Amino acid sequence: MVYDINEKRVNKVLKIARKYLTWVQNSVLEGEITEAKFIKLKYELKNIIKEDEDSIIFYIFRTKLYTKRETMGKEKGKEERII
Amino acid sequence: MVYDINEKRVNKVLKIARKYLTWVQNSVLEGEITEAKFIKLKYELKNIIKEDEDSIIFYIFRTKLYTKRETMGKEKGKEERII
Repeated sequence: MVYDINEKRVNKVLKIARKYLTWVQNSVLEGEITEAKFIKLKYELKNIIKEDEDSIIFYIFRTKLYTKRETMGKEKGKEERII
Repeated sequence: MVYDINEKRVNKVLKIARKYLTWVQNSVLEGEITEAKFIKLKYELKNIIKEDEDSIIFYIFRTKLYTKRETMGKEKGKEERII
């Protein structure tokens, strides 16, 4: 999940998203999620965001077989993920 | 490609990335890219970023069959993509 949210609402959005996903970089979260929880997440976000100002994109991988993740530089969310 | 780059270097990073990919949201680019060009992109970025301050993540989809993209709210890159 990547988001670009007005600063008035960004903390609320992050708080919701972190109930379901793990923060990995500024404005980026990742995680495994069931279809039911994904629907809940989107429902909660919809109540917070302003459709004409904010933007969220979900990239959904149904399998890990054909996907890869590569990083360069610092892994910002790492400390948190270890905890 | 998602990036979190110190503001001193962020414009350079975006300029490089846009030679290969399309900007779709603050700090997010997408695109189809050959393996050779992907290597070039990473090489160019490596010369700009500071490994201990900046962070870039690439999510690579080898096929579109098992992936989906969903958006909520505004599609910020859309105007640009139409042009």
